[in-house]
Amino acid sequence: MRTESTTLERNTSAGTDIHDLSRDLESFVSDTGITEGWLMLFVPGSTASLTTIEFESGAVNDFKRAIEQLAPEAGEYEHNLRWGDGNGYSHVRAALMGPSLVLPVADGQIQTGTWQQVILCDFDNCPRQRRILIQLLGT
Amino acid sequence: MRTESTTLERNTSAGTDIHDLSRDLESFVSDTGITEGWLMLFVPGSTASLTTIEFESGAVNDFKRAIEQLAPEAGEYEHNLRWGDGNGYSHVRAALMGPSLVLPVADGQIQTGTWQQVILCDFDNCPRQRRILIQLLGT
Amino acid sequence: MRTESTTLERNTSAGTDIHDLSRDLESFVSDTGITEGWLMLFVPGSTASLTTIEFESGAVNDFKRAIEQLAPEAGEYEHNLRWGDGNGYSHVRAALMGPSLVLPVADGQIQTGTWQQVILCDFDNCPRQRRILIQLLGT
Repeated sequence: MRTESTTLERNTSAGTDIHDLSRDLESFVSDTGITEGWLMLFVPGSTASLTTIEFESGAVNDFKRAIEQLAPEAGEYEHNLRWGDGNGYSHVRAALMGPSLVLPVADGQIQTGTWQQVILCDFDNCPRQRRILIQLLGT
Repeated sequence: MRTESTTLERNTSAGTDIHDLSRDLESFVSDTGITEGWLMLFVPGSTASLTTIEFESGAVNDFKRAIEQLAPEAGEYEHNLRWGDGNGYSHVRAALMGPSLVLPVADGQIQTGTWQQVILCDFDNCPRQRRILIQLLGT
Repeated sequence: MRTESTTLERNTSAGTDIHDLSRDLESFVSDTGITEGWLMLFVPGSTASLTTIEFESGAVNDFKRAIEQLAPEAGEYEHNLRWGDGNGYSHVRAALMGPSLVLPVADGQIQTGTWQQVILCDFDNCPRQRRILIQLLGT
């Protein structure tokens, strides 16, 4: 068993910016030569999350609307009153969604479904340079 | 350290169908002979999730009601308008809940609490044949 | 590759009690001498969860308010009608949030952001003695 790691970088824009990471993840897995194992992903920072979705604009917009109802951008937040940075909603969304994801690899492929893509959700209210930390553990 | 893997299969019905996977997971762990390690679970597809709950009908129904409020089946979804398959709510629920779960094994037992079962949540609006991919890593 | 494990204990109070685990996790990682790997965390029980947040009282209170809206303490729950223990809302919150967390370690440090702390969320309606099971896998 061995591990290989990499970092993906994404420049995001303000307001629940969703990026499909699937192609870069598949390239990384392929390059390692590891065919059986687990891929572990993590996004540092308290205003972003990782999950999977069918990455087509309809489902992505539906997801954005649901998360806006969970923690509305225009709501009142103690974090904003205290720090004045206006991203209280971003912190709540990221804490609810979580920063990590674990995915199996078999036969050299990430075992997501055909219509299931891995996404970075940046909830912050200003553009960010995000790093996604990735490790593949396997044989 | 070694790994053992298996796949569970479940036939699900339409409308937030919840299945308790605990007994099958315990049998798998026991059969491997691995006594210390981590169990990693993943459900392929963008309309299902994995989590834990006290698997009794009251708590399960309460969970179903909460997830129905988060993403109502009868709501308006762009995914439905675009693809006509009527499961926009399923995609939103699964993206919010996530497709993976990680559980520790010690003394040959999955370390869930007495009243804590591992569940598959199928949010799709039609019956599905689900596979749950499982790997145990340990000694 | 090797594994090291530990258990953290926390005495919690009733009503969405949030504990910052970051310092104890950093001490554990440092003591193991493992500098590259993955930290896996799990809380047994069906009324508690693990996630990350900026641990300052504003963001923590905002998170508590959002989770109260998701599953209000004073709502009607079948679990309560059946078992009479009044913590139906706790079960729903924990099922939605999940019991596990996976975090990368590099250069001997947990790779969380500067303003990102690891938290235990105890949703139960009475004080509890919680154990958080932790394993570090790496080199």
